[in-house]
Parts: sequence; C-alpha cells; structure tokens
Amino acid sequence: MPDSAGQIAKPHTTGTSGQSDALIAILKNEFGERCSTSQALREQHAHTTTWLQNQPPDAVVFAESTEEVAEIVRQCASHKVPVIPFGTGSSLEGHVNAPHGGISIDLSRMDKILEVNSEDLDCKVEAGVTRKQLNSFLRDTGLFFPIDPGADASIGGMTATRASGTNAVRYGTMKDVVLGLTVVTADGNVITTGGRARKSSAGYDLTRLFVGSEGTLGVITEITLRLNGQPEAISGGVCPFPDVQSACNAVIATIQMGLPVARIELLDNLQVRACNSYSKLELAETPTLFLEFHGSEAGVREQSEMFSAIAEEFGGGPFEWATVAEERTKLWTARHDAYWAGKTLRPEAQIMVTDVCVPISRLAECVTETEKDIRSQGIIAPIVGHVGDGNFHVQVLVDLDNPEEKRTTEAFVERLALRAIDMGGTCTGEHGVGQGKQKFLRREHGEAIDVMQAIKQALDPDNLMNPGKILPQS
Amino acid sequence: MPDSAGQIAKPHTTGTSGQSDALIAILKNEFGERCSTSQALREQHAHTTTWLQNQPPDAVVFAESTEEVAEIVRQCASHKVPVIPFGTGSSLEGHVNAPHGGISIDLSRMDKILEVNSEDLDCKVEAGVTRKQLNSFLRDTGLFFPIDPGADASIGGMTATRASGTNAVRYGTMKDVVLGLTVVTADGNVITTGGRARKSSAGYDLTRLFVGSEGTLGVITEITLRLNGQPEAISGGVCPFPDVQSACNAVIATIQMGLPVARIELLDNLQVRACNSYSKLELAETPTLFLEFHGSEAGVREQSEMFSAIAEEFGGGPFEWATVAEERTKLWTARHDAYWAGKTLRPEAQIMVTDVCVPISRLAECVTETEKDIRSQGIIAPIVGHVGDGNFHVQVLVDLDNPEEKRTTEAFVERLALRAIDMGGTCTGEHGVGQGKQKFLRREHGEAIDVMQAIKQALDPDNLMNPGKILPQS
Repeated sequence: MPDSAGQIAKPHTTGTSGQSDALIAILKNEFGERCSTSQALREQHAHTTTWLQNQPPDAVVFAESTEEVAEIVRQCASHKVPVIPFGTGSSLEGHVNAPHGGISIDLSRMDKILEVNSEDLDCKVEAGVTRKQLNSFLRDTGLFFPIDPGADASIGGMTATRASGTNAVRYGTMKDVVLGLTVVTADGNVITTGGRARKSSAGYDLTRLFVGSEGTLGVITEITLRLNGQPEAISGGVCPFPDVQSACNAVIATIQMGLPVARIELLDNLQVRACNSYSKLELAETPTLFLEFHGSEAGVREQSEMFSAIAEEFGGGPFEWATVAEERTKLWTARHDAYWAGKTLRPEAQIMVTDVCVPISRLAECVTETEKDIRSQGIIAPIVGHVGDGNFHVQVLVDLDNPEEKRTTEAFVERLALRAIDMGGTCTGEHGVGQGKQKFLRREHGEAIDVMQAIKQALDPDNLMNPGKILPQS
Repeated sequence: MPDSAGQIAKPHTTGTSGQSDALIAILKNEFGERCSTSQALREQHAHTTTWLQNQPPDAVVFAESTEEVAEIVRQCASHKVPVIPFGTGSSLEGHVNAPHGGISIDLSRMDKILEVNSEDLDCKVEAGVTRKQLNSFLRDTGLFFPIDPGADASIGGMTATRASGTNAVRYGTMKDVVLGLTVVTADGNVITTGGRARKSSAGYDLTRLFVGSEGTLGVITEITLRLNGQPEAISGGVCPFPDVQSACNAVIATIQMGLPVARIELLDNLQVRACNSYSKLELAETPTLFLEFHGSEAGVREQSEMFSAIAEEFGGGPFEWATVAEERTKLWTARHDAYWAGKTLRPEAQIMVTDVCVPISRLAECVTETEKDIRSQGIIAPIVGHVGDGNFHVQVLVDLDNPEEKRTTEAFVERLALRAIDMGGTCTGEHGVGQGKQKFLRREHGEAIDVMQAIKQALDPDNLMNPGKILPQS
C-alpha cells in the first residue's frame, strides 16, 4: 500500500483552536514526548490513498494502554476536540484523515498478545498487534489467524473497517472472527462486548455494531479473536479461462457444490499481464483464477480434482495445482504484489483503488460492464477480485495532477459503486466507507441511514469520534 | 415444546386502558376479524415455558404484509401502546409475554417465500415462514437452510432470538446466515438492512443489531438468508464415553483438528436413559456423543474414521457410524425428542428448560459441576448439549405448584447462569434473554448494558417495542 502522502489541507477543528491548544498542552504534560505536533508525524497519521486530500490531526498521541486511551478520550471530550484512532495507516478511504482536526490516537504501541487459548481456538490481542505479528506468534501452536487483507494491518484497524481479503470465502470476515471487544466509548468509559463463548443470545450484538464502525462510535483497544487450526495440507494453483463469464460460472459452481475452497481469486487480462511482468510469471494473458485448498492430504487432492472437473465443464483449464510450498508461495506473492505489479503499467501515475461486492450471480456482468467502462474511458485499470464472495477491486492508474483525469476517475468510481448497488450489491465489500464512499451510502441503505444516524447520535452526541466518516453529511 | 399456558396474570398497560380501547377499536375497524380480543387467543399468544407467568396482550392482530405491520405499529405509537411480535410461540424465556399489555402482532400469515436465488445460495422469506416449510420448499433445489433449533420455529422468531441449534458448529447461528432484513421501526417506518452481497463494509451492521434484539428495536418482517448446498453424503452415529470429561476432550480435539463436523451433541447418562426408554434405543447409559458429518462420500468416510481415532485416544468408543438414512433418522429423531423423553422421567411435572454456553475448554468442568449441583439438590434434570459450541441445555422436571420446588429450581438456574458467566461464557447460548435471563445481563456485560440502553432509547424512545424484555429494569 502506498506510503506517500497526498496534498495537504489545513485542519478545521470543531472545538475552537484555543480549546485544541489547551488540550494539547494537557496531553503534552501527561504524555511527554508521546504527544507530538510535528508536521511530518501529523501528515503521516493522515496518510491515505493519494486521491484523497491529506487532512492532518492537530496532534498525535502514542497510547500504551486502554486506560491511557480512555484518559485521552476523556480529555478530548471535555475540550470538545475530535478523536481519530490510528493503527498502521493502511486503510484506503481516508479513514484516518482529520477533516475537523483533533487528536490522532496511535495504537501501534499497544502490541501485546494478551492470551492464546489453544483449546478454545481463540486469543486476545491489543489493537496495535498486526496480523503478521499474530501469525508469527501463533506459528508453533498449530493455530492461525485467517483474515488476510494483503497489507500487514493492525487487528484494531481490521476490526474497525470490517476487513476481509483472500481467505474470506472460507474463513469469513472480521465480523465472523471477532468474538469480543474492549472499547473506549465517547465519554471515556471502558466497556467490554461479547465474550469467549462461541455463541450467545444475551442481548444486543454490540461486538458487531463496533466491527466496521471505523472509530465513529468508540476506540477499539482489545480484540478477542477466533482462530483456526493450521490445515494439515494445502494445495493451490492457477486456472485460465477464455473469458470472465466462464471463470465466474466456474466460481459459482464451486461455491454451489460446497467445495470448501480457501481462496479463489480472479485476475483479469491486464492484471495477469502486469503480474507476469512484475513477478516473472509466464501465465497466459486471459482471465485467470488463483485457487487454494485447505484440508487433509486426501481432502485437498479431492477438492483440486473436483475443481479441475468444474473448470473443464466451463471451458477453462488446465488447472495446474501443486502442494509444494515454494510454488504456491510464488503464486500468492504475485497475487499479493498485484498492487505493485499494476503500478508498473504506468509507473509515473498514482493508484486509486476501489472495491465493490455483488451477488456472485451478477459478478460476471459487473466485471464485464466495468471492463467496458474502463475501455470507453481510455483509462488503465487492472481488476483483481475475491470472487468467491463476489468482491472485486479496480486499481485505476491516474495522474491526479491532471484535473480532467481526476474527474474521469471519480466519475468512473461513482458509476462502479452505483452499478454494484443496482445489482443488489454494496459500494464497498471490504475497504470501508471512510470519506471516499459516504456519498453512496444513502443510495445503498435508504432510510436505514437514519437509524445509523440515531445510533451515532446516541453513542457520540458531540460527534467527536472520528467525525466526517461513514455517515453522509446531512 | 410445551403448548400449555401457565398461570394467567392481568395485563398492565403503559398507555391508559382508554388509549388501548380506542386503539383496539381502530384496529378492529381496519383489520376486522383479524384483530381479536378473545381470552383464549390472547393467552395462547403469551404462552411460554410454563415456569414464567402468562401475561396476555390486550389484543392480537394477524398481519399479512409489511405495510400492515407498519400501520399497526404507527397506530400503537400514536396511542402509546406496546407492540409484541409473535411468530410460532416456541420461544422459551417469556419473549411473547405482554407484561405491560399491548398488541401482539401475529406474523404467521406472512408465510411467503419471496425469492430463492440458487446461483447465489440465498433466499428471501417473510417472517412467518417456518424452517421446515422453507426446507420443504428447497428440497428440489439442491439447497437447504441449516439452522435447526429443534422446534419448527418461524424464521422471524429465529432471527429475533439469534437462534441456532444442532448444526451451528458447522453452519453458524442466525447471526451468520442472515444477510439482510426488512424491519418496521418504532415510528412505523420500513427500513431494509444488509443486502445480498456476501460481505460489505458499508456502514453500521444494523442487520446484526436487529438479529437477537427480540422485537425490542423493531418488528422484523422479511429476512434474506444464506443457504447451503445439500451435502452429497451424510454419515452419523453415536459414541459412548466413560465420563463427561473424556467426551468433552474428544470434542475439543475434533474442533481443534478442524474436522468440519456438522453436529456433535452430548447426552448425559440421564438423558441417554430417557432417550432409550422413549425412543426405543439400546444405548449404554453413559455420556454419549451423537455426531453427523457432511461432505463427499470420501470426505464423510475420512471424517468418521478420524473421529473414531480421536474417540479412542480419549478412552471412548466404539464409534458406530452409518451412512444409511434410516438409521441416522432414528438417532436424530431421538435427539430431537430429548425434551419429550426427559419428560417421561417425571411425567406429572412441568419442564423448565435453560441453556448456557461456555468456552469449550471449560465445558467438562461446567457440565460436571452442574451435574453435582443437580444431585445435591435432589432434582431431576437431564443435560443435552451442542457441545461443539460449548452450549448445553438443562431440563429441570419441576412441580411448579410446589413453591419450594419452584424456588429450588430458580436458584439452580441462577447458579448455572452465574457459573457459565464466571467461566467466560454466557447466560444464554441460543434461547435468548426474554424475561427469564434479564437479571443476569449486567453481570455478564457490565457497563456495556448502558450502551445497549442508549441504543434502545434512541430507536424506541417511548419503550413500546416488546417492553420488559432483554434490558434489565433500571
């Protein structure tokens, strides 16, 4: 994910700047050098995809415990200054921008793995733990944490944006694997939600209300996660198809047969070409599925053979699969490097990434129409998708300094979002709303937005928790 | 589940009885014979497990569309009269009681299956469709709806109570399979939540806020459900163990190995004895697991063999399994008849059913302590559990006309709920809170209850949506 900051905007505080100054003086007194107002650090804490303007917070505080987060939130509340939680800054829709100024709470030092309960296949971590850190820690336990959004995001950030990624088709998204949370609410109280039981009918599902709330209802500081046993065997491979339609039909058949595929990813022609060049692969430049199966030795063989038959039925193949770790690693590294591979198609451009998700029966149509749209606009935009879920990403290579190109790209993103919504899908499958998708939310949810607003108003009456995100300005 | 009504209490309305009378006159005018105040019908619409007092609504209205539900809710709102949604009346914790009087909206005539999308493995149903009706309808499509709480409950009621049952270990609970909802809110607006995309990061997860809200935030009228492909092959069988501990250890090992068991149910000695007698089985009277595996022919064989080895490792077995439908049906009919079998242990008594759920590492300890508690109290109470989730039920056979027995049972249920909470579990895994578990909620959730109260207040400021349920009276 890109680390370069975009244009810089002046912050606008909701509190007066006097309140913000007084607050920062208090925080500097309490947190010493862990409270910083350096320009570079503030800009880095508002970094997003480059197409959104950088809106830095007034200060950054590095919190080291839930109690410290609560103290910062209480101080912000009493000074009516916004709070913006920050994990690793790998989000894509302006989630960490501070359009109204405020204090960025950096949670990266809350990186303790608090407990791992092997018998129960769960663990509890602080919000700043990253997914790779957690999986390194788990390596010898026989367990793993399956959610893989590509970036080495923090678990707190992944929870806040309801992240998912390549494994979601089998292992679910953050909404499925988060069992419980510790949250600092807008008034600086600390609550815990959910618990370690696998299921519960005891009251409102606050856990899933906070999952995906993007910091707008409170700051997530600890997360209890469901884990999975490491599979005994893994097989994987690639399968070319003559066109997007036949690839999607093979995906539908795979899901419908209940084949427990762990990953099933579509790369369009252009993305395959980019990956060939960037990752030294020699794939045919045609719509291609990347697959992975998890299970017993016999199980993954059976699954691979069944998929092979499905692919053939829909005119695809041959499906070349391997259980050798090195070959699989090369493929999946290429898949994860798709972003950087895409960039080589126009090295001087910036990348504007967007994602949508549709019912899989509409996937082929949605991808095909989007490809047509791309061609008609003359833009360069490879497509890669978590197609088992009907979710795909478009990476538009765009010169943001060219106003016309920027407008063309924004209009393309808008058409894509509305196309997905009109097909019974959503304007974002896994990247979240942030600032980038706000304008599509009422079209997608209608009057349910008013219910979301009522909840926001009830839990954050002064609108200080990551203001200017998710809910459209009324 | 029992159909007999318990003691009858006089309704207490929050509105004046004049308001209620005026409202009923309006509803009778609008709905004719579909609005009834007959004593028998009102009592039947408040029926619950017999240990909770029957508190009938002031009237029952049979709604036939979302728009009719909205009209009833709007009328109730303007008269400040409570609304109690009613599906099939198979809930267990007083969910359909009307402690403050009000209008019971019977949704059983909203029984249309609105759409089935085979390619997307989803469907949309009205709230009154029952799970057996849905599965009959789906039989020829190759799909099925996996959630099986035992009773032939309505999908609306199952959604409202976050139901699960025997298949949850593999297929999840209602929180996992509900993709979207149509809900009539407290002000009589109609909103839709979620959608048909497999995943979305577009805003607050209202779907899962309404799942399990037991009618206290709105009336669910339509549900979009994820479906599963019917498994190619099913195998199942029973496996005896020397004690609860070894059975639970086998369950933990099974889950930890990632064996995708579809059902794994524990029956304690007493429950086995009852099932032997009631269902003409000849099982050894020892803690016994009932299992079912879904998959390919080879897959279920492999799973069965792997479980067999696990059972042996923990001193259990032999695991006798069969792929013959008749034998499996006999076993699972016996499992589903466990309630009636239990009743034969003391035919003249009533049954007080309760459920808790704990992390599976604590399951053996929780079940063993509970059995000890049962013995020390001299009560008759078989145990049966969805142990793959750490969830188990206790059916206390109790003479509710005997005040001392009633007190003993209530105290036992309280100890059980607190035991589960203290082990990191929940006071209810799948039956819901209703009236019966309200008093345990603050112990389980602490200050998170205040957040639930704030949401309730925001979405139902006049406290008219199924009042007196879930949230403890403050």
